[in-house]
Amino acid sequence: MKEVYLLRRPVEAITEHDFLVARAPALVPGQGEVLTKTLYISLDPYLALRMRREIPDQLSGPPYPIVGRTIGQVIEAGSSGFAEGDLVLGFGRWRTYDARPAGDLRRIDPSDTPPAAYLGALGHSGFTAWLGLAIGLPKASETFVVSGAAGAVGSIAGQLAKQRGCRVIGIAGGAAKCEQVITELGFDDCLDHQQPDLSGRLRTLAPNGIDLHFENVGSKTLDPVLANMRPRSRIVLCGLVQHYQDAAPISFANFRLLLERSIRLEPFSIYDHQDQAERAQQELIAAVRSGSLRFAQTVTEGIDQVPKAFVAMLAGQGTGKHLALVA
Amino acid sequence: MKEVYLLRRPVEAITEHDFLVARAPALVPGQGEVLTKTLYISLDPYLALRMRREIPDQLSGPPYPIVGRTIGQVIEAGSSGFAEGDLVLGFGRWRTYDARPAGDLRRIDPSDTPPAAYLGALGHSGFTAWLGLAIGLPKASETFVVSGAAGAVGSIAGQLAKQRGCRVIGIAGGAAKCEQVITELGFDDCLDHQQPDLSGRLRTLAPNGIDLHFENVGSKTLDPVLANMRPRSRIVLCGLVQHYQDAAPISFANFRLLLERSIRLEPFSIYDHQDQAERAQQELIAAVRSGSLRFAQTVTEGIDQVPKAFVAMLAGQGTGKHLALVA
Repeated sequence: MKEVYLLRRPVEAITEHDFLVARAPALVPGQGEVLTKTLYISLDPYLALRMRREIPDQLSGPPYPIVGRTIGQVIEAGSSGFAEGDLVLGFGRWRTYDARPAGDLRRIDPSDTPPAAYLGALGHSGFTAWLGLAIGLPKASETFVVSGAAGAVGSIAGQLAKQRGCRVIGIAGGAAKCEQVITELGFDDCLDHQQPDLSGRLRTLAPNGIDLHFENVGSKTLDPVLANMRPRSRIVLCGLVQHYQDAAPISFANFRLLLERSIRLEPFSIYDHQDQAERAQQELIAAVRSGSLRFAQTVTEGIDQVPKAFVAMLAGQGTGKHLALVA
Repeated sequence: MKEVYLLRRPVEAITEHDFLVARAPALVPGQGEVLTKTLYISLDPYLALRMRREIPDQLSGPPYPIVGRTIGQVIEAGSSGFAEGDLVLGFGRWRTYDARPAGDLRRIDPSDTPPAAYLGALGHSGFTAWLGLAIGLPKASETFVVSGAAGAVGSIAGQLAKQRGCRVIGIAGGAAKCEQVITELGFDDCLDHQQPDLSGRLRTLAPNGIDLHFENVGSKTLDPVLANMRPRSRIVLCGLVQHYQDAAPISFANFRLLLERSIRLEPFSIYDHQDQAERAQQELIAAVRSGSLRFAQTVTEGIDQVPKAFVAMLAGQGTGKHLALVA
C-alpha cells in the first residue's frame, strides 16, 4: 500500500518536490465500505487549482492526501451489491488501494470501451466538452475555435463541433500537437500558440471572424482570440489552466472588445448540469463505439510516477487525457 | 455659427487643449435637408472611445468634426414634413446650427417632459439602463449592484431594479454622489469606490453575495465586485468608462472567479436591440410622468464651454446626464 501526498500548499508552480509517495498501512474497510484496488488515477488541471485553494496554509503539518477521480477494481464488496472484480468509478485518494462507501461508487462496463475512457471521453472530460457545446450552441458553417485543442477536453470539443458542421480551428502548444489534432482528430486547422502573432495568424485563417470560442487555457490564448471574435459572438469559458499555478492578476489587452462587440462570456461547470450527464454519456458512448469520436491518452505507469506525470501534464506535455495506470 | 472640433486623435487622457471652438461659415441646407438650431448637446463617455478609435492617426491635418446626439429646433423645414419650431432629436455635429436629412431626425414631444430628458432618461441613457435589466433579468429580493451609480445610466438602472423589488447597492465616486443616490434616487446603499477596500465593504453590505451586477466603469469596480458575486450570478457589461481614455491592458485579480463560480458576463449595446427601443421609451415616459423615475442632470451653458464640460464629465464630476445647453 502506497499513497501520494502533498507536502505543502503550493505557492508557485507545483513541482515534484511538493509531493511525497510513501508506504501506508493496509486499509480495513469500515461498515458499508468497499475495498478497491486502484487501476487508474485521473490527472487533471483543475486539481492544481484545488490544491492551491483548498489546502490550509500550513508551513508544517502532516502530508496532505489528494482526492481525484479514479477507477478501481472491487476486492472486498461486503454487502454493497458490487461483486468482486467489478470496475468502479468514483472520487478516491491517490493510493494503490482505497476504501469508500458503496454509494460513492459507480460500476462501469468495460465491454463497450476501454475502462480508462470512463475517466476521459466518456467521463468528466467528455461531459465537459459536450456541455460547452450545449451552452455555446455551435451552428453549421460557423467558425469554432478551441484552445487546449490537444487536451482531454479540447480534443473532444473540437471533434463534436466538427460533427455539428462547424469549421474547427484548434490552438495547441507545439507543432506536434497541432499536427496530431489535424491528422488524427480531423480539425480543419490548428495554430501553435508558442509561435508569435497568434492573433494575426487567426485573422488569416478566419478573416470573417470567430463565431464561438471554447477557452481552456487563459489570457495567452483568449486575448489573441478576442481580437478575432465577431460582433455578438460567444465564448464558453471552461478552463484557465495557464492561471491555476499562481494567483497573479490576469491581464487582457483586448478586454474592451468584449464590450465593443457584445461578446458573451459564459463560464460553466459540469457540477451545475449533472441532470444532463446521462444524456451526454449516452451520446459520447455511441460516438466512441461508432468510431466517430477519437480520444488520445497519455498514460504513465506506477504510483511512484504520479507526481512527475502530474507536473508534466500541467506543463502541457503529452496529449489527450492524462492518466496514471497504478495496478 | 460656431463649432467644436477635435484637433488631434487623443493619445492619453483627453484635455480641453485637444479641442478647438471656432467660428464657421453659415450653413445652407441642401436638397431634403432640415436646418436646425442646436439646443442641447449630449456629453457621453462613449464618445471618448470613438474619438480614440475612429479618428485617423494624423499628426497634422484639419480639425476633426465631432458627431453625437443633439436636440435641435427646426428653423427651415423645407418640404421635410417638419414644422418650423419643432424639436428634433438626432445625431448631429457639435455646432450651434446643423443641416441634416429629414430622415435622420425624430420629432420629440416637449409637452410630457423637459426636452432634455430625451437625451437622458427617455433617450439612449434610459434605454441602455432598461436594456441592461431586460438582459440581466433581476428578480424580486435579489441583490443588485450598479457601478457608476450616480451617472446617466447607472442612476436609472438602480431605480429600475429597485422597482423590480431588488435590494440595490450603488457604487459611485465620492461621498456626495453616494448621498445623492440614496436620498434622492432611493437606492438602499451606496459605496464610494474612492475609499479603500471596496470588496470588504461590499461583503459587509451583501454577506450572501451579489446576484446581478451592472457594470459601467471598469476594473476598479468590477474586480472588487467579482469577489462578491454569488455562484451562477450574472454581470451585464454596459460600459468601461475607466478604460476609454487609454489603450492599456485591463487587469483583474479576480478573473478566475468568473470560472470558479460560473458567473456569466454579458456585454450589450442598444444598437443590437433597436426593436425594443419603442417599448422601453413608453415604459420610461410613463415612469417619469408618474414620478416613479427621477433623473439628475449636469447642464453646462454655451458652446464655448463644451470641451471643458466634456472633460469634466469624463473625470467623473457632476451627476446624472451631462448636457450642454447651446441655445
